[in-house]
Amino acid sequence: MTGIQKTPEKNLMVFSGRTHTALAEEVAASLGTDLVPTSAYEFANGEIYVRYEESVRGCDAFVLQSHATPINEAIMEQLIMVDALKRASAKRITVVQPFYGYGRQDKKHKGREPISGRLMADLFKTAGADRLISVDLHTDQIQGFFDGPVDHLMAMPILARHVREKYGDRQLAVVSPDAGRIKVAEQWSRQLGGAPLAFIHKTRDISRPNETVANRVVGEVEGRLCVLVDDMIDTAGTITKAADAIMAEGAAGVVIAATHPIFSPPAVERMTACSAEEIIVTNTLPLTPEQHFEGLTVLSIAPLISAAIREVFEDGSVTSLFEGRA
Amino acid sequence: MTGIQKTPEKNLMVFSGRTHTALAEEVAASLGTDLVPTSAYEFANGEIYVRYEESVRGCDAFVLQSHATPINEAIMEQLIMVDALKRASAKRITVVQPFYGYGRQDKKHKGREPISGRLMADLFKTAGADRLISVDLHTDQIQGFFDGPVDHLMAMPILARHVREKYGDRQLAVVSPDAGRIKVAEQWSRQLGGAPLAFIHKTRDISRPNETVANRVVGEVEGRLCVLVDDMIDTAGTITKAADAIMAEGAAGVVIAATHPIFSPPAVERMTACSAEEIIVTNTLPLTPEQHFEGLTVLSIAPLISAAIREVFEDGSVTSLFEGRA
Amino acid sequence: MTGIQKTPEKNLMVFSGRTHTALAEEVAASLGTDLVPTSAYEFANGEIYVRYEESVRGCDAFVLQSHATPINEAIMEQLIMVDALKRASAKRITVVQPFYGYGRQDKKHKGREPISGRLMADLFKTAGADRLISVDLHTDQIQGFFDGPVDHLMAMPILARHVREKYGDRQLAVVSPDAGRIKVAEQWSRQLGGAPLAFIHKTRDISRPNETVANRVVGEVEGRLCVLVDDMIDTAGTITKAADAIMAEGAAGVVIAATHPIFSPPAVERMTACSAEEIIVTNTLPLTPEQHFEGLTVLSIAPLISAAIREVFEDGSVTSLFEGRA
Amino acid sequence: MTGIQKTPEKNLMVFSGRTHTALAEEVAASLGTDLVPTSAYEFANGEIYVRYEESVRGCDAFVLQSHATPINEAIMEQLIMVDALKRASAKRITVVQPFYGYGRQDKKHKGREPISGRLMADLFKTAGADRLISVDLHTDQIQGFFDGPVDHLMAMPILARHVREKYGDRQLAVVSPDAGRIKVAEQWSRQLGGAPLAFIHKTRDISRPNETVANRVVGEVEGRLCVLVDDMIDTAGTITKAADAIMAEGAAGVVIAATHPIFSPPAVERMTACSAEEIIVTNTLPLTPEQHFEGLTVLSIAPLISAAIREVFEDGSVTSLFEGRA
Amino acid sequence: MTGIQKTPEKNLMVFSGRTHTALAEEVAASLGTDLVPTSAYEFANGEIYVRYEESVRGCDAFVLQSHATPINEAIMEQLIMVDALKRASAKRITVVQPFYGYGRQDKKHKGREPISGRLMADLFKTAGADRLISVDLHTDQIQGFFDGPVDHLMAMPILARHVREKYGDRQLAVVSPDAGRIKVAEQWSRQLGGAPLAFIHKTRDISRPNETVANRVVGEVEGRLCVLVDDMIDTAGTITKAADAIMAEGAAGVVIAATHPIFSPPAVERMTACSAEEIIVTNTLPLTPEQHFEGLTVLSIAPLISAAIREVFEDGSVTSLFEGRA
Amino acid sequence: MTGIQKTPEKNLMVFSGRTHTALAEEVAASLGTDLVPTSAYEFANGEIYVRYEESVRGCDAFVLQSHATPINEAIMEQLIMVDALKRASAKRITVVQPFYGYGRQDKKHKGREPISGRLMADLFKTAGADRLISVDLHTDQIQGFFDGPVDHLMAMPILARHVREKYGDRQLAVVSPDAGRIKVAEQWSRQLGGAPLAFIHKTRDISRPNETVANRVVGEVEGRLCVLVDDMIDTAGTITKAADAIMAEGAAGVVIAATHPIFSPPAVERMTACSAEEIIVTNTLPLTPEQHFEGLTVLSIAPLISAAIREVFEDGSVTSLFEGRA
Repeated sequence: MTGIQKTPEKNLMVFSGRTHTALAEEVAASLGTDLVPTSAYEFANGEIYVRYEESVRGCDAFVLQSHATPINEAIMEQLIMVDALKRASAKRITVVQPFYGYGRQDKKHKGREPISGRLMADLFKTAGADRLISVDLHTDQIQGFFDGPVDHLMAMPILARHVREKYGDRQLAVVSPDAGRIKVAEQWSRQLGGAPLAFIHKTRDISRPNETVANRVVGEVEGRLCVLVDDMIDTAGTITKAADAIMAEGAAGVVIAATHPIFSPPAVERMTACSAEEIIVTNTLPLTPEQHFEGLTVLSIAPLISAAIREVFEDGSVTSLFEGRA
Repeated sequence: MTGIQKTPEKNLMVFSGRTHTALAEEVAASLGTDLVPTSAYEFANGEIYVRYEESVRGCDAFVLQSHATPINEAIMEQLIMVDALKRASAKRITVVQPFYGYGRQDKKHKGREPISGRLMADLFKTAGADRLISVDLHTDQIQGFFDGPVDHLMAMPILARHVREKYGDRQLAVVSPDAGRIKVAEQWSRQLGGAPLAFIHKTRDISRPNETVANRVVGEVEGRLCVLVDDMIDTAGTITKAADAIMAEGAAGVVIAATHPIFSPPAVERMTACSAEEIIVTNTLPLTPEQHFEGLTVLSIAPLISAAIREVFEDGSVTSLFEGRA
Repeated sequence: MTGIQKTPEKNLMVFSGRTHTALAEEVAASLGTDLVPTSAYEFANGEIYVRYEESVRGCDAFVLQSHATPINEAIMEQLIMVDALKRASAKRITVVQPFYGYGRQDKKHKGREPISGRLMADLFKTAGADRLISVDLHTDQIQGFFDGPVDHLMAMPILARHVREKYGDRQLAVVSPDAGRIKVAEQWSRQLGGAPLAFIHKTRDISRPNETVANRVVGEVEGRLCVLVDDMIDTAGTITKAADAIMAEGAAGVVIAATHPIFSPPAVERMTACSAEEIIVTNTLPLTPEQHFEGLTVLSIAPLISAAIREVFEDGSVTSLFEGRA
Repeated sequence: MTGIQKTPEKNLMVFSGRTHTALAEEVAASLGTDLVPTSAYEFANGEIYVRYEESVRGCDAFVLQSHATPINEAIMEQLIMVDALKRASAKRITVVQPFYGYGRQDKKHKGREPISGRLMADLFKTAGADRLISVDLHTDQIQGFFDGPVDHLMAMPILARHVREKYGDRQLAVVSPDAGRIKVAEQWSRQLGGAPLAFIHKTRDISRPNETVANRVVGEVEGRLCVLVDDMIDTAGTITKAADAIMAEGAAGVVIAATHPIFSPPAVERMTACSAEEIIVTNTLPLTPEQHFEGLTVLSIAPLISAAIREVFEDGSVTSLFEGRA
Repeated sequence: MTGIQKTPEKNLMVFSGRTHTALAEEVAASLGTDLVPTSAYEFANGEIYVRYEESVRGCDAFVLQSHATPINEAIMEQLIMVDALKRASAKRITVVQPFYGYGRQDKKHKGREPISGRLMADLFKTAGADRLISVDLHTDQIQGFFDGPVDHLMAMPILARHVREKYGDRQLAVVSPDAGRIKVAEQWSRQLGGAPLAFIHKTRDISRPNETVANRVVGEVEGRLCVLVDDMIDTAGTITKAADAIMAEGAAGVVIAATHPIFSPPAVERMTACSAEEIIVTNTLPLTPEQHFEGLTVLSIAPLISAAIREVFEDGSVTSLFEGRA
Repeated sequence: MTGIQKTPEKNLMVFSGRTHTALAEEVAASLGTDLVPTSAYEFANGEIYVRYEESVRGCDAFVLQSHATPINEAIMEQLIMVDALKRASAKRITVVQPFYGYGRQDKKHKGREPISGRLMADLFKTAGADRLISVDLHTDQIQGFFDGPVDHLMAMPILARHVREKYGDRQLAVVSPDAGRIKVAEQWSRQLGGAPLAFIHKTRDISRPNETVANRVVGEVEGRLCVLVDDMIDTAGTITKAADAIMAEGAAGVVIAATHPIFSPPAVERMTACSAEEIIVTNTLPLTPEQHFEGLTVLSIAPLISAAIREVFEDGSVTSLFEGRA
């Protein structure tokens, strides 16, 4: 046969945007490699410039960017990084978004709104992304917004292990801050050995729907250490009011657990002032020193992400590894 | 200037698949026109054949098909109808799916599942659909699955008006059969003048999550006529158990209201046997004479669909008309 | 260089829909593997659910489904299987359709018809199919409907070998049931050592076109064992009338050979009643016990399909293997 | 409502490439307009340059190019014309190809061939074509190669009317030069009042397939004026041999009728030397003065094309007009 | 014919992002309408939310956003606005970008860079943009990055008219700050009645290429009022050094004219300190009060943009209107 | 795990169109292989037919075609070759266009022109090209026209080495024939050890723009051997006039260096008549014996192209190899 034969090599390369290099470095180290050296800066008018300092031809690229504030900069930088990889002949491009920006705009609440969550999926596809890895999407349906494989990782086992180890000998309850998230609370309950469930009706009394009252706790929390669980903490208004409501119902204490620490002002003030004993988050988003406070515990998501990347690279099963949704 | 000038005409044409022609005829009549005469039949091996008996060139086509059982036949016929319209030079093709098939498969519950809800959206886009009209999607995020405008209509005002007129003088409560659908129940409550809310935990006691118990009613239903609301009734297992649980809690009566009457066996048996006084549905799906029973009320969705079609054709606002999500 | 190197592995996996698992198992066995364990069932309203029980990440997937009756179910199941593979990160997806459904609707015979054969090709592309393997397409142009590689296999060598071995010592003639398929008959003639050709004019006398007469045999069949050849047998009306016409012209006997046994009613009645000695088909479509009858011979297409899959997996030449159209 | 309202105008504009401006001018005149003034020329190295001399913004553009020799120049010019229209904001672009180039390469005859007929459809789609009008495609399946509406016009009624008027009082027969085209001959027969059919087996005796013999006439031609029909005349080898064979069988005369006069050398020599009394073609392709000869009749296809353009512009029915395939 | 006929209306609607509403209002007023009322704000974490307060169904939408700093916010907002219009059934969406962001990254200067200028074109196409209007693109080839019509407007006639009216009686010269932009300077020269040309070699002596020297003026500027022309002023380093170099060569004065006033720091300091008498720009980008200084003249681009929008809406010729590149 | 494992092989195959097989053979030989045997010819009407004589399944295909005159034939043949490779299951298809046809039409100079350079990129993408290799594109922005990786090679090092070796001991100057190409001349200057630069204003005196005068040389050329550099020589009018103008300014001699020898008539006459001592080109385009003349030196581009192909095949860095733009 005419031609030149060769046994191919696969090469995994990890790239990082500039919003959360600490996480990316941890992921790369955990994989046993370094981040690909990359030049990135803004022009005077804010246009982002990116260039890789090494050949990326034929590589299996994983581009990690945390969609932290300023979030539009973060997304645009990641789009541009994907474009540069596509044009430099990367073989496959996986976008890693520990926090998926615009996930809350996943439907039209009213007429003439965008569905920005879908738009983001399409923009990354257009730039050249082949696949997507993300942690705790705001709704599971976002998986269906991307036209390609999505590995949807779950941080709950990491958070729950911490709670179990630290508070396992106390009387626990799991509380959802919102009626719509009881299913997640049920999964928590299973992880915590069958702790009872409760939830908060935050806007109105369930029996008098048109009167807005203080948060009402549904379920038994009295005398228990309540684990209040959510996917993200943005301004922390809802969650801290929930914590206070639980305490008012006679709980023995409150611990808050959430995956994504957005911590927009005045989240830190609210959390330091609230009655929770501990607030447990992951590092899917970067925190400044000012955003750290007593009682905050940050668990690393890097082992989860690096394990997923390894499975993707080696064609292993993400599902079996994380017992999750792949 | 070279060329031939002409003031164009727009022409609205309504097409119907074979699963629910009664609804399509009602929609067309309400618009003041007839269904476009269409030949449709199966070959001996089940392949579907479709042909329009009139020119459709340049028309604004609305293709109505109810995704009733056998549902794959219904979907395939509608896809083929869209293909024939595209190739016959229809100017714009709007797919009208009163019930959106495969809407329940809107995410991966476990690894290696399809997201068939997204797949259907893509199949219709590929066949040539420009826009989509549907009623009460299983989750709102499905709007984001289609790459184009989606008019998402709500049947609740129609159902609620009936309840209000018939039972308005009684003490009402609104009950959700499932914790995940409390928001819909809240909208019902507003439509019914602030009736109190309750919901059912169907699989397990909220305080002992690992023991499956009978449905537990959360909220006050005693002495009230309870309106039990859902988006669809398939085999009617969940909803009839909920009705029985409500009665067991001392309710004065139960009325069930749901948009989509799928009524797969043994739905009819279960509904006739259950303690609900009345079961109110719309005709988004066709019912056979055997599927009608005493206590069943079927309200027509045709006025809603025809009004939406008219607004789409005349570039009016669907949002303002239905106070809904457009 | 930054990164992690690895020599990749390719992994061939065979998947089967539910219409014809016997064929799929035979294909897999012939390749030396098993079918990937798969859950598949219908919901009460007929919506199809599919899930693979093993990781399929990175595999070279071959998804076999026979487009048997109920054909729309069969096609929809295969589309959903492809979607699930795409979202589960299969590396390449080859759709194997031993019988290509809707192939007869390959053009507009009249205005305002669909071209469903093209539509099916586009639907599979949209779902995620990269390539297509099929046997004896209704017209060769269907290859051009799919935007990607199509391996078009031919069953004739298998059928012809059987005829040669069993009837090789008799005086043969090859007969086409239709003027449009004489080229296929010519290929048969070459396979049978230059047996003479004949064909049937089924609707009208060639010299008096507006009078419908009984089938007229053109060519010499008297005293010969006639091999009547076609691509498919649907209701068997044409082919059995042709067999009778040949016998009426003094043939020594008739043997029917066709690739696809659709066998829609009343095909079995017609075939058992007709004057053919033997009816030879392949198993591209499944047959129920009721569809087997004395005189029917079913030859397996599995060796042909498994050989094609092996060549595709190993980047060998399908053309050289089968002396066919690749 | 915010905004500025206006009743739109439609504007039909006809554009012509340079291969057959006489036909385009005839089409435009028949529509009652002129061709849009266009600059078109080659650079020294053969690159084609096109520019329109009038605004085309918002027009309904019909771009006529005959795919005459040099055919690749003709196709490339038409692609470039479409690109220029797209970028200059034409509202809709219809490509008019009286003869569809590369239509004969509509399948893979052997492995590793292109399907150039499909490729051409895709190239025009990519350049910006919305629709296609063509006359007598080589096979009907080519309609399915283009992803959009195709108006497939038939020249036979024009050719048949000429034959009927000129030879209607003689004893006619219709002859196909090839077994594969008998269906077209049947349509001719109907147009000519039920004239008997015959066809030619050009390569081998039907009863001795491996011996190439002279063309054999199947059907009765003796004493009749035979109308020999085909879709195109390229080098005229097949058709002229067929004419001679018919005469050798005792026909009273031969008239040849074909839609597309490609007339590649030595077509003219062969046709002038053959025994046909008259050769009737249309002007879908241009003929040089040297390609005209005694006995050649060229009928204009312009009325058919201009009627189709008018129906497309006015959203009328092409099907009803031409009783054809739309 | 079945169906409902209606003469359609076209409706022009103008939408504005939040970076430069003054310009958008001026454009709308010049067209005789108002901006469509729009809600737009950021969530706490910076995610942008947009909703239109009126029905936009069927409108001809023009979405104006100036790509000012923070430029990624500006672009993302415009993308989200386009998505909302697409999903709300706008008939046609024209993106108006007076300054095209990322236009300077229009090629790979080195390996492994993105081509962000092309990426932006693709992102807008994906979001739903049908057409693009922009002023003075950094290079003309950017027109070819967008897959659709681009109206490329030129500000020079506006700038040149001002210069002619104010300085027409003086001895003028036109100076390009860069060898690559002499063609633009030639167009200026024609607009100014044949004023002589000069240009600056900013990095090195033309005869000693490896020594970086001060800017060298090529051409005669002595005793003349020099009009120094460029497409944009970002940090103003190049242009102010050029002005000083011209004065050092004995020019009678310098006037700077540029289309896009990006004015990134320290542009204002440099411009106020430099020897130019007047700096003339347009308002394609917004200027804060701090960015205004003595000697700065801002001419409005609104009449040009509104005239272009009107022509696009009315299908007139943009080319003829502006004598420009359409 | 179910399935069959295998370590894959990569197979590089080189294909050549018919315009410049000598170059393709040289490239293949330099890689250590042969061209894949290919049948290619025209039908009588000019339609191109292509077929590969060996299996190409799974190969890494490089398809080389020089866009020589007749250029539309050359492009169409390459498109058809790509289609055939796609349908025959090549794994990756890289189009190698040493000279990129239609590159000069890279923008709209006036309204209603095509952007043929972008159109060509889209046509190749549609046919199935994954990547593009080209030499010295007319403008760098053309890289952004193709949606995928482009390896943009530079011939200057090859040309400059020849000049350096032959004329390195003389007093050199580098001259650009056009103000727009001074940056290329600067690169030449660096390659030649800092030779001084000059350029030609070919249409008008820089100080009197509206009077067309003879070419004016800007920079010092007196007494020097001038290297006149350009990207292509088409009819050679500009470059030969430039050479004469340089000599008229007192240069010691002129050597012309250009990458692409289009040599359209009367290029050869002009070059043989002009005052240049030597004309140095590469073989990106084929030259007939009549296009060779005394003083013409043709350097081979094959080593550059084969090195690029090898790096692409082996996932090496094209950037590092050629110090170029990748």
